[in-house]
Parts: sequence; C-alpha cells; structure tokens
Amino acid sequence: MIAILKHGTTQAQTEHLIAWLRNMDLDVHMSQGQEVTILGLVGDTSRVDMELLGSLDIVDSVKRVSEPFKQANRKFHPCDTVVEAGGARIGGGHFGVIAGPCSVESEEQIIEVATAVKAAGATILRGGAFKPRTSPYAFQGMKDKGIELLMKAKKATGLPVITEIMNIRALDLFEDVDIIQVGARNMQNYDLLQELGKTNKPIMLKRGLANTLQELLMSAEYIMSEGNENVILCERGIRSFETYTRNTLDLSAVPVLHELTHLPVVVDPSHGTGKAKLVPPMAAAAVAAGADGIMIEVHNNPSCALCDGAQSLTPAQFSDLSLTIQKIREAVR
Amino acid sequence: MIAILKHGTTQAQTEHLIAWLRNMDLDVHMSQGQEVTILGLVGDTSRVDMELLGSLDIVDSVKRVSEPFKQANRKFHPCDTVVEAGGARIGGGHFGVIAGPCSVESEEQIIEVATAVKAAGATILRGGAFKPRTSPYAFQGMKDKGIELLMKAKKATGLPVITEIMNIRALDLFEDVDIIQVGARNMQNYDLLQELGKTNKPIMLKRGLANTLQELLMSAEYIMSEGNENVILCERGIRSFETYTRNTLDLSAVPVLHELTHLPVVVDPSHGTGKAKLVPPMAAAAVAAGADGIMIEVHNNPSCALCDGAQSLTPAQFSDLSLTIQKIREAVR
Amino acid sequence: MIAILKHGTTQAQTEHLIAWLRNMDLDVHMSQGQEVTILGLVGDTSRVDMELLGSLDIVDSVKRVSEPFKQANRKFHPCDTVVEAGGARIGGGHFGVIAGPCSVESEEQIIEVATAVKAAGATILRGGAFKPRTSPYAFQGMKDKGIELLMKAKKATGLPVITEIMNIRALDLFEDVDIIQVGARNMQNYDLLQELGKTNKPIMLKRGLANTLQELLMSAEYIMSEGNENVILCERGIRSFETYTRNTLDLSAVPVLHELTHLPVVVDPSHGTGKAKLVPPMAAAAVAAGADGIMIEVHNNPSCALCDGAQSLTPAQFSDLSLTIQKIREAVR
Amino acid sequence: MIAILKHGTTQAQTEHLIAWLRNMDLDVHMSQGQEVTILGLVGDTSRVDMELLGSLDIVDSVKRVSEPFKQANRKFHPCDTVVEAGGARIGGGHFGVIAGPCSVESEEQIIEVATAVKAAGATILRGGAFKPRTSPYAFQGMKDKGIELLMKAKKATGLPVITEIMNIRALDLFEDVDIIQVGARNMQNYDLLQELGKTNKPIMLKRGLANTLQELLMSAEYIMSEGNENVILCERGIRSFETYTRNTLDLSAVPVLHELTHLPVVVDPSHGTGKAKLVPPMAAAAVAAGADGIMIEVHNNPSCALCDGAQSLTPAQFSDLSLTIQKIREAVR
Repeated sequence: MIAILKHGTTQAQTEHLIAWLRNMDLDVHMSQGQEVTILGLVGDTSRVDMELLGSLDIVDSVKRVSEPFKQANRKFHPCDTVVEAGGARIGGGHFGVIAGPCSVESEEQIIEVATAVKAAGATILRGGAFKPRTSPYAFQGMKDKGIELLMKAKKATGLPVITEIMNIRALDLFEDVDIIQVGARNMQNYDLLQELGKTNKPIMLKRGLANTLQELLMSAEYIMSEGNENVILCERGIRSFETYTRNTLDLSAVPVLHELTHLPVVVDPSHGTGKAKLVPPMAAAAVAAGADGIMIEVHNNPSCALCDGAQSLTPAQFSDLSLTIQKIREAVR
Repeated sequence: MIAILKHGTTQAQTEHLIAWLRNMDLDVHMSQGQEVTILGLVGDTSRVDMELLGSLDIVDSVKRVSEPFKQANRKFHPCDTVVEAGGARIGGGHFGVIAGPCSVESEEQIIEVATAVKAAGATILRGGAFKPRTSPYAFQGMKDKGIELLMKAKKATGLPVITEIMNIRALDLFEDVDIIQVGARNMQNYDLLQELGKTNKPIMLKRGLANTLQELLMSAEYIMSEGNENVILCERGIRSFETYTRNTLDLSAVPVLHELTHLPVVVDPSHGTGKAKLVPPMAAAAVAAGADGIMIEVHNNPSCALCDGAQSLTPAQFSDLSLTIQKIREAVR
Repeated sequence: MIAILKHGTTQAQTEHLIAWLRNMDLDVHMSQGQEVTILGLVGDTSRVDMELLGSLDIVDSVKRVSEPFKQANRKFHPCDTVVEAGGARIGGGHFGVIAGPCSVESEEQIIEVATAVKAAGATILRGGAFKPRTSPYAFQGMKDKGIELLMKAKKATGLPVITEIMNIRALDLFEDVDIIQVGARNMQNYDLLQELGKTNKPIMLKRGLANTLQELLMSAEYIMSEGNENVILCERGIRSFETYTRNTLDLSAVPVLHELTHLPVVVDPSHGTGKAKLVPPMAAAAVAAGADGIMIEVHNNPSCALCDGAQSLTPAQFSDLSLTIQKIREAVR
Repeated sequence: MIAILKHGTTQAQTEHLIAWLRNMDLDVHMSQGQEVTILGLVGDTSRVDMELLGSLDIVDSVKRVSEPFKQANRKFHPCDTVVEAGGARIGGGHFGVIAGPCSVESEEQIIEVATAVKAAGATILRGGAFKPRTSPYAFQGMKDKGIELLMKAKKATGLPVITEIMNIRALDLFEDVDIIQVGARNMQNYDLLQELGKTNKPIMLKRGLANTLQELLMSAEYIMSEGNENVILCERGIRSFETYTRNTLDLSAVPVLHELTHLPVVVDPSHGTGKAKLVPPMAAAAVAAGADGIMIEVHNNPSCALCDGAQSLTPAQFSDLSLTIQKIREAVR
C-alpha cells in the first residue's frame, strides 16, 4: 500500500503519521520527492482502513498495490476452482447450465419444467422459493413449501438444485439444497455471508445492482474467510441510465473476474436483460466471453400464451439455445 | 393501473388476458383506440406484479396511476408524521440535529463527543457499534460493548441515541436505543425490515446506493405494513460516475420525498460527500431544500492532527454549522 | 401517443388541452375511465414535444406508442441496410472487420499496420487524424497530414478507410475517406449530424457515453432525415460506476438495436474496455451477440515493449482474434 | 505525476520507460520499494498522456499530483474571477440571477417576460434561439430571428442577455449577446470551445450529462488556453438511474468547483430537476451551497393554464424565490 502525502506536509506531521502506521504493525518506507512524499507500507495491509487513511488532511491519496482480497485472489491460487454440487461441476473447464422457473408454483409445474430442462441439457435446476420483492404486497414465494417441491423435482430428475436464501434463520430448510443463492440485494448483507461461510454448501453470490467487481470479490471474501471456499460468482446486470433493458448486463465482468480470481463465473441473462428475446443472444455472448456457466429462466405452461413474453424462455427456445452454446464453446475453446 | 396492449393483439388474446386479470379480483375497463387497446384496472392493484404483466408478449407497457406504496403515501395521510424518540422530535416542523462519531471507540471518547455535540446544538447522538465494512478484515465495530458505551453517553448527556442494526438476532441489544438505523446496504434486506416493523422503535432507513426514491418508499412500506409507523427516511448519497466525491448527494430527494410521503426526511452529508470540507455547505443546502434533520459525523481528539481530514467535523466546526443551519431555517421558514 | 390525465382534471381543462392538441393537426380520442382519463393522439406525433406535454399540470404521463424515429425504424424498413464503402460491406449478413492504429503517426507506421491487418483479415482500415482529447494540451492528431497518410495506406493496401471528423469545416479533407466517423462526444452535435446528412458518405455514429439507445437512433435520424441513409451505429461502452474497465461495454445494445432498426451495428471493444487483454473475449462476445462488425485497435511497433499494455492488440493477437471470430460467426449463423 | 510500476518489472524495462519519459522533457526520480517501484515525474506533465502511460504493461497505475488544468486552477489564481457582462457581474461575491423563457417565441412574449423578471430581481435575461433537440422533427428555435427579438428585449429592459450557440458558423449573430452559452451536449465539442476561446465574450459552459467535474474544468481550459478567461461554469444535473427527476442535480459540484477553480459557478435547477415544484427548493439549496448565481426558466402566459406544470416558474413564483434567495444569501454570508 502506498500513501502519497500532500505538498506542504510538515516533518512533524509526517513523523506523527509514520508512528501511527508502525503502531499497526506495518513497515513504513519513506521516499521524499520534489513534489511529494511517498510512504510505502509493507505488512498485512488488508487490515488498514484505506478510506480513513485517505481522508487525513495531509494525505493526497492512498493506493493499494496488492488487492484487498486474499482467498479469492488468483495470485495466491492460480488454478481455477471447480465447484461440485450434487454431481454437477462449474469452473475449470466444466460448464454449468442452470435452468428452471423464476418461482416454484406447484409440484406439477416444477417437475414438468425440471424434466424439460434436463432433456434440453440443463445440469442444475433453479427455482425460487423465497422471493425478494420490491413490494411487501407482492407474492413472496412458496417459502418452505417451495423448497419441499424443489426436492421432489430433484428426486424425480436427479438434477441438483439451486435456490435463494434471504434469512439465515431459514438455513435448516436448505439442508438438501445443492447450491444456496445469495441475491443481488443481499450481496452486502455481511452477517448472512459470514453465516454461510460457516457451512460447507456451495454458494452462488450475485453481484449487487450498483456494486463494483472488487466489492463482489470482497463479499466472496466474507464467505471464504469463514472457511467455505465453494463460491460461484454471478453477473446479473447492473443499474445504468439505459431504460430499454431492465439492467445493463456487464459481460466484461467475465474476463475481468477470471483475471482477478480463481472462482467460477456464471452469467444470468434472464435478469440481466429482463426480456426473453434478448436472452439467447446475451447467453451466447456470455459463453463467448468465457463464462463458466449460464443461468436461464425457463417456464412451461404451453397452454398459456400470456407467458410467452416474460423474460423466461420456453423449453423449445431453451433447447435451441443449448445447442448454440455448445457450438460457441467449441469455437472459443 | 393501465395496461397498453400492442398493435396486432387478437381479440382472443385480449379476452384471455382480461379473464386472467379479473381472476385477480380486478375490474377491467377496455378502451379500444385506433392504434392501441388500453385496459384500465381498478381494484387493489398493489398486488399486481407489474413486471410480469409488462413482460407479456401482447402488452406494450404498464403504468401505475396510483403509487404502489400506501402507508407511506401522503395522499392517504396528508399531515407530516412527527417521529418522537427519547424526547427528540423529527418532522412536521421539528428539526433533528443528529451528531456523533463514526464509531464508538471508548467510553471516554463517546462521552466527550456527546457532551461537545450537545453543547453545540445536537438533539440526538449517533455512534456506530456494528459497522458494515466492505472488507471482512477491517474493524467491524465494538458491537455489544459499543452499545453499552452509547448507553453510558446517553445517561451522561440525556441525548437520545441512534445506532445501526445489521442482524435481527441482535435486536435485544437495542432495547434502550432510541432510533434503530438500517444502513444503505441493507435497504432491501426485506426480512430485517419486516422484523423491525414488528417493533415499535423509530427506524431510520437509509437510501441504498443505487435505489430509486420509489424503492426507498417501498422499503419503508415493508416496515410500516407490519405495524410500525415510526420511520425516518435518510438521503446519504447515491452512486454515480463522479469520483471526486465519495457519493453523489441527491438533494432533490428532499422535496420529492416531501411531496410523495408524510415521513420525515433527514440528510447525511458526511457519508454523502466523504469529505469534511464539503459537509458544511451541503448540510446548509440540505436545510435550504427543506430537510427535517441532518446527520453529521463529529469526532473529538483535538490532540490528533491526523484525524482532521476525515469526513468528520471537529466540535468547533460543528458548532459553527449549527448556527448557519439555524439562520437558514429562519430564511426558508 | 397516449396522454394520461391526472385524477381531478376538470372538464374545462381537458377541453382546453384537446383544443391545443387538435391545433397541432392531431386527432384526439378521449377515453374516460374511473380513475383516469386517457387521450389517444393520432397523426404525426413525431412533432409533439413529449417533455412539454408531460410537464403540464394536468398530465400524469405521456407514452409514445410509435417510436419517435422513422427512417431508422425497422417497422417501416424491415430488411437490413447494407452499407457499402470502398468495396467493403457491413450489415445484412456482411461482417465488417475494422482495424488499425489509434492515431496515424507516420507513413511507415500506417502502411505497416494496414498491411498487417489486411493480411490478418481486416476489411477496413481505421486510423485517427483528428483526435478529440480531454485536455487541450494533449496531442490532437496529425490532422490534414494524417488524412493524407491514410490515403497512402489505402492506395498501398486497397483497404477502404474510416476516420473521425470533429468539425464540419474540415469536410473537404474527407473527400476520399470511405466512412466518416462521428465520435461519442459529438453524438448530439446536431449541426454536425445535419451537415453530414447532406453528404452521401457512409457515416459511423458512435454512441455517447451517457446516451440511451433511443437517443442514438434519434441522432441517426438527424443524419437520415437530411437524405443520407448510409449510417452505421457503433456501441463503444457507456459510463457507469465500475472503475476496473474504462467504460462498460453494453452488448445488449446489439440485439436491441437489431430489433429497433435496420441499420448495421458495430462494436468497438478497444475503447469499450480500455484494456488489450479484454479485447479478444469482448470482441468474441460481440460477434456471438450478433454484431455486424467489430472495430479493433492494432499497433505495430514490435520493437517497443512499452506499447504492449495499451488497449491495442499486436498484429499477431489480432490475427488470432480474426480466426476466433470466424468460428463464432459460423456457430451462431 | 507519479507512475507506479508493477511487481516483476525488469530493470531493462524500467530503464526503457525512463528513457522514453526523459525524451518528453521530464525529470524522472525513481524510488525502489520492496513491493513496487515508483517513478516521480517532474516538469510539464500536462502534456503527458495519462491513459497511454497507465495502459503500459509494466505500469500499475498513474497518479497526477498536480491537476491537468492550469488556467482554471485556483492554485495559480487564488482570487475569485468576476465575470462582467453588460453591466451584470457574477463571481467573487457578485450574485447573478439569470431568468427568462426556455425559448424565445415572439416579441411580445420575450419583452413581457423580460420586464417581469427584471421587476422580480433578475440581473440577466435568458432565452433560447437555437435549441438543441433530441429529435430532428421537434421545434429547433427561432434561430437568428430569435436573437433579434432578444436584442429588442435587451433594449427595452436594459438587461444583458445570455443565449446558446450550437455552431461556430453562427458566431456573427452573437455580436450583441452578452454571454454565450455552450450547452451540455456540446461540452466536449472541442472545436467549438477553441473558437469561442478566440473571442472575448463571456462564455457559460454547462456540464455534460455524464461528465466529471474534472472534465468540465478541462473543457473550460480549452476556452481559456485560447485566451478567453471569461468563463462561467454551470451545474445543470447529471444522468443517473433515478427516474423521478429529469436529471440528478449534483449540488456538491458547487463547493468542489470553488475549491478547484477561481471561475464562478452557476446552478440551473430548472433543467436540473425538470419540474417546476422542485425549482424553488433546489434553487435555495444551490444558494446555501455557495453558488454564484442561478439560472431559472420563467414563462409568462398567465392565461394559459396548460403551461403551469412545465419546469418554468410563473413570474409570481420567481418573485417569491428571489426573496428567499436573498435571505439565504444573508444567512450563509
């Protein structure tokens, strides 16, 4: 870590600061230039509060030379992490195809969709039981009953399942869930992350709507620092000024995260765009960018023309997409 | 609520949709124009999933005519809500001056700052015990010990106190806290909001970094719909592309929220700007815009020149600011 | 166009508004619902000032049913536009590979790079002569001399060339340029767009840093409404809060624009990411998303290790990328 | 300027880089730490291309110690600039009250509004003659005829006038205009800025929708570096994800710009919010934050209830606002 001191800082002030830093068990190397004085800090700088240091009157700016995340850092763990969940693998060349309905609605529905997506190439079944909704008056999911139905679909198809947790108190219900999802709104719910870090379940951590990639990695670090290294990262769109799409899918997250971390990176084009028509091209793009998996909403209900426009694909559309993805995977291999 | 159907929608599709909507206990009035068909939906539309409806193939767009929040809505509650907390009042002409250190660090510190800010005009003491930090390796606050020390400062000065909760499991510790703060990162932690809605404590809800004002009101609605109407809203800066300030303080939130809701609106220029120099002008601006209170970080530690640059004001600077604020309140009255 | 009137609007106000609208040669159909009154406006609504209409006291909101762009609209021109420029074609199944250095620096440089990119599969040569720079003190390009050198490279290789215009006064210099580029900063320089609309040159219009896709199409409309239909759109990254990449490349622009317009869509991952390492995966993703072309910065200068890190690829890297792109084009065909 | 080299940079590479930098007439001071090597660059670093330097493979990051703007920099010009225009003054304690209609529409209209705003305390008259419109089909202003009418209003009331230029070719028409406005969309139309720098007219430069404050200052530098020091900066709202207001008025721009530059700073709450109701509180807030002036849209047309909702105030509302502003100016003095 490097601290650049302002022009005009007195020697007394500089010494005061150096003493304060040494007090934190850091080695401090001073380099006095014409315009500025630079302090190089060596030691465990992950504990240094960059914002506080940078806000001091005499400090122009602070710059990390080493990233603030350790366990998620590719530098200390060059090989790709492969996350295994109920027989499926994601990362390190293993591609995860996660598909299923937005919400679990009935036993018939979830089993029908699960069967269809399995036939079309899905390796993991998704389905929401606890649903975070902007409005307290909207449908909040089938909750524990929804998880029970997911388990039936798992049994019926053999697909491992992923579903979202919103409250650590509900953890017992997730015993047979294969991957626990942390939604975008809870990406910085640190207490939840730490509790999940004490389990050994694979966790899929979705990027928050206005969170940088570094913040996503710091949240992964919250889980990993408690002992759970089975973390999958998920890009699902950020908030921008553009209104045509629900969110702005930031696909550069894929190669950037692959550079910074060994954790697998999945892309969710269904939430990332909010429009079914955009899901196949953006899923294809995600694969071309190097994603380790995709997460796609698929509904059944062929009798109900009403649902065609949602962000969910039909099983037939999903099946076509699966084929395209396979071809692109071969093209970029 | 109004749904605009796409050109080319067949009569059968329209009838199918109308049947589906009537099934949700809504009255549907159809108006067929040359270019479009419009459905007017009457009834309890707060339960209608706008996103789902809008995503249907035959629907061009959906528009709410009435806002999706009820209890926070000024239309149904024209008078300003006045929140009372330990003798202090905020809203309806009562101005709250919340001040104190970023974190509680020691008994001496918190009592010293509390005494100083009280002398300078503060009506409520702030101080962080549980600190949400981007990094799991950074100082996370003194936790329960911090709350104990806050209680000592409350006893010593008579000031009511506000401090942040991060996990509903810690609620018991907040028994003597006067206002519970929900931080920006937890603005959409709906389980936490609902649990706080079951208490009768005043809650200060901070706007998330990338949340619209309507989403802030929907989160307030999560608390209020459980029975707790003592909600204070807080603007603390949003995330934008500008890098000079830590966040972009969106002061138009003040008059907009006053139009939409009866709840009091407080502004936090310390987090909103991240720089001590910018706190006094932006606090003054907040008051001129009509804020019901401000929340200011103040530190003691006059012997430590190091801290001068932080986003915290010294007690002397805070005292000056208090006087300016009073003058502006008179000017805009 | 639809105008939704507010609850409580009097009949006199409504009639006043209808008279005003009819005065603009619009047919107005009123539909009075329980909660709201809706006016359907039929006629040439592209001339209606939506913002003014929407800002009237009695108007809740205004909604376009038909898009405000006509000539760029796919509805009125269902087939893809193919832009031809000096033998190269872009759009309608023709893929454009635009490559070359950021700036023209010398005759030797531009001819060397042009020869290299042609060998590696480029169909069009890029090279900046007039450079928009944030600072007036930075290198502003070789200007007219730069265009002369581009012409030499064109002659030497047979590649058509694209270069940026910043001032309509310089138009004469662009006589032999095959495609004129309008940069992101000038996307809403309407006077420049209109003047270029009076030429018959192909124009590549780059999306502004904070412009919506609809605004991009409205700027294309400025060119097309003057008679020039040879417009290529270019996504080159938008401004967001993420700081790791220079811009946030919004690849969903590709399928969205293909839905809304018949104009070809090119992606520039060099400016869109700002990092050479990210160019190949994001170029691949752009092709998978359906782009009609890509625009890539390539430098020569193999002796100068200093340049390796820029957003430019080496000819060898570009050659590899060309092969990958071909494979992906086959995969998504 | 400081360049931080990456860990692992070889000595040969470092020497190569240093030679290249010295070639640009810079002194280079090297400081080798354990983790990193730091180069301090001394000399005229405003000509160094930070982006190029930062993109080199061996460079971790580059940091300016001195700002890239010189003539606009308060460090080299500590006293406030006072811009004089037709008898009015802005800056250095002089407050400018700019008011008038959005567009000049007729002689009667502009003279009526000019008379009204003068009576209510305006010191400068605004009125658009050339209007930048998103759509080529929307009203583009009365152009030269509009400027003629503005001149009549100036003669009738004695108020100096400000109006927008969109094309340098129209400069002759602005001979008697007192302040020339450069709109947000043209903030980085560098050719226009340089031409205006060759005049001696006061220029009001509006911040672009997605431009940082440093970019605004660099654009001011484009004008000033050509010799024209009469530049007024204007904050008029930036683009964010919030949709309730048309733009997000970034009032922290006021104290930040006052710290960085000696140029006067004006705020335009009419465009910054897009809603008449929000103009008075946000104008008041701008003054409390220290603005040197405000720019307010005022319409006449008391007979036409239709216009009440626009972002324009009535003369009566503007008159009330003028009084509030005066009181706040006294409060913050």
